Amino acid sequence: MDMVNAALIAKKASVGLAVEKTEKKNLALRLIAEGLMEKKDVIFQKNLLDIERSKKENLPAPLLKRLKFDEKKLAEAVEGINSLVDMQEPVGRTLMATELDECLELYKVSCPIGVIGVIFESRPDALVQISSLCLKSGNAAMLKGGSEAIETNRILMEVIQTASEKAGIGKGWIHLIETRDDVKEMLKLDEYIDLIIPRGSNDFVRYIMDNSRIPVLGHSDGICHCYVDKDADITMAVNVVFDSKTQYVAVCNATETLLVHKSIAKTFLPELKKKTDEMNVELRGCEKVQSIINVAAASEEDWKTEYLDYILSIKVVDSVDEAIEHINTYGSGHTDAIITSNKDNATKFMETVDSGNVFWNCSTRFSDGFKYGFGAEVGISTNKIHARGPMGLEGLLIYKYKLIGKGHIVSDYAEQRSTFTHKKLDKIAP
Amino acid sequence: MDMVNAALIAKKASVGLAVEKTEKKNLALRLIAEGLMEKKDVIFQKNLLDIERSKKENLPAPLLKRLKFDEKKLAEAVEGINSLVDMQEPVGRTLMATELDECLELYKVSCPIGVIGVIFESRPDALVQISSLCLKSGNAAMLKGGSEAIETNRILMEVIQTASEKAGIGKGWIHLIETRDDVKEMLKLDEYIDLIIPRGSNDFVRYIMDNSRIPVLGHSDGICHCYVDKDADITMAVNVVFDSKTQYVAVCNATETLLVHKSIAKTFLPELKKKTDEMNVELRGCEKVQSIINVAAASEEDWKTEYLDYILSIKVVDSVDEAIEHINTYGSGHTDAIITSNKDNATKFMETVDSGNVFWNCSTRFSDGFKYGFGAEVGISTNKIHARGPMGLEGLLIYKYKLIGKGHIVSDYAEQRSTFTHKKLDKIAP
Repeated sequence: MDMVNAALIAKKASVGLAVEKTEKKNLALRLIAEGLMEKKDVIFQKNLLDIERSKKENLPAPLLKRLKFDEKKLAEAVEGINSLVDMQEPVGRTLMATELDECLELYKVSCPIGVIGVIFESRPDALVQISSLCLKSGNAAMLKGGSEAIETNRILMEVIQTASEKAGIGKGWIHLIETRDDVKEMLKLDEYIDLIIPRGSNDFVRYIMDNSRIPVLGHSDGICHCYVDKDADITMAVNVVFDSKTQYVAVCNATETLLVHKSIAKTFLPELKKKTDEMNVELRGCEKVQSIINVAAASEEDWKTEYLDYILSIKVVDSVDEAIEHINTYGSGHTDAIITSNKDNATKFMETVDSGNVFWNCSTRFSDGFKYGFGAEVGISTNKIHARGPMGLEGLLIYKYKLIGKGHIVSDYAEQRSTFTHKKLDKIAP
Repeated sequence: MDMVNAALIAKKASVGLAVEKTEKKNLALRLIAEGLMEKKDVIFQKNLLDIERSKKENLPAPLLKRLKFDEKKLAEAVEGINSLVDMQEPVGRTLMATELDECLELYKVSCPIGVIGVIFESRPDALVQISSLCLKSGNAAMLKGGSEAIETNRILMEVIQTASEKAGIGKGWIHLIETRDDVKEMLKLDEYIDLIIPRGSNDFVRYIMDNSRIPVLGHSDGICHCYVDKDADITMAVNVVFDSKTQYVAVCNATETLLVHKSIAKTFLPELKKKTDEMNVELRGCEKVQSIINVAAASEEDWKTEYLDYILSIKVVDSVDEAIEHINTYGSGHTDAIITSNKDNATKFMETVDSGNVFWNCSTRFSDGFKYGFGAEVGISTNKIHARGPMGLEGLLIYKYKLIGKGHIVSDYAEQRSTFTHKKLDKIAP
């Protein structure tokens, strides 16, 4: 593929898409959902090809699970699209209105970012989610899925392109990128592409950041923590930690490290082990953990590792402060939970842990755009600018300032002939 | 200076500053304003040293003007600080509250970004503005001012540090960086610094982007345009263009290129020239312009140039579409204005010009945080993520998601024992 040309086409298409009518975008979304249902047999068939090939190539089991696109994933994808249709038009919303002076009115109005490049793992459902989020938010998109999912991605892309064209959306707003060389090319095109969202390992995100001038919204490692405080309810703590670790191990919001307050460790850890043994979770602990339950030793490396597997590292800490310090040192700013009935400790934890998602008495697995009620997500940002945590529509929007006057000039204010009123207006941009 | 150590100190200080009480931050701001007034004679004296040295070094006149810190600049700086004191606490605001299920509540809460590195030109008043914005928003800051302003910057920094310590703000939240080598070092510290805001030329911003993994919010070139449409009021157009060009030529929101609709050019251009001749503005025009008024020829290079001087390039266009196309090709996404009484053309222009600030019938010089009523600005972003246009407090904030449950686990939802309610809540985060 000629990437420069593709990006140029996307840029041009983005101008039209940015001002596209709500009805047309929603029609396109509905037709995409219909198209997916109609073509589901072909889609499943193609997905089977991907799975069989990947099995032969010895793709690890958790990744095979992500690669699967079946009735359940399809139903979720369609549900996600339908909830997007129901959502309010995100473009053109007046976010602020101020009278600067009589007949000089400032409006802050939401608008699409432009052209978004998304590089994601081998989950074909991600392609559907990201495409529909881009469409609803009026952004053109260049998508690179995992090469394991190539057959599934192609047929999904075909459905999306056909449906959106049928709805009257101008061609060229969405492109599928298939090779690593094309990704390399894409990273150079800061003239046409406004944002890159890479989802994957920390190393991969670093590679992208080091090789592009385009702003990057990183979905890097998910090294999530549960901290069981001294004032935790043991049963609740066991359940929340077990769910955080095992409910779906191959995802970024699964817990990788458990921190336990020293005064509760002796009663809590044996209870937890009973439960995790049912699922054959491998536990690795610090020396204090090893003095309580029979587990392998955890090394420094464990605190930095995203297992994405049935492995949990455990550390005993002296205080909530030590837990916070550990998380801010080794965590990835993704999602961290405290289990406690102590409100002060919970507040301190939630205010001081520097992560996009800080939880109290619930599983880290809740950290997800769909569960948050965003309809779908384009990724989970561990950055500290623009968007943090699960990014739904809002992460794909920016704003512009519109100022409307009647010939107002600045020298009148500089020379004190006029003064600013700066009055909040309760009206929407004309 | 040991930059790693300075950044580490700033990072640690940022944790405390992030949860600092409103009263203490406001007290610090008031003490800074008082300190500036008390020390004004020393400040002006130091500033004179900077100006005299820079004159000897042949600093161009517009830059000398920016370097000046006098009674007027001081009054503006103090006014800016006072308006920040009056502003609502920006940290800890509940931006969204959703019930995910009974007793499982999600809150989106504003928080500081962390440590901000700002590299700015030789305007000492910028140092005061940026410091006070960072303080109010709870961010630690590493500031590099123009080397021309070194003496002024040092004394200003001393006042700020002394005043904030007196108010009880922990030391180390703000650092002055003096050398280019230190900037180079700073760009590597992505572990401690969360955002770089460079203000300066496009080349400089590109250099920063190419040499850092830290997200960059670029204040790059200000190649601003005025487009005089066929349906413009001639007198208004002359006044607005004249103000946009000449009210203060050394700043990024001054207009550099004028676009004129062909059907109005013959009556408008001679009127404009009469006015600009009063200020000895050098006009450079395309061939069509040259056939109407006696001006030098504009080259392709002129459309890409930020003069920051009494020079204006002029082009005759066939339509509003050609004007939009020209701006989206040569502009820097900063501020562009249309002068017209035609609402359709104005709307098209404001929706399709891809700039942070799009104006109708007013001067591009209004594009500024103070004039927008933001109190002050940390820079004007020409990026398309996080913040666009003048960045006041809001540009220095991000948010985190707080989720509060009673032991909620995801498997209950995955296995349909529970369902999400996703109800909007009208309450603030506890």
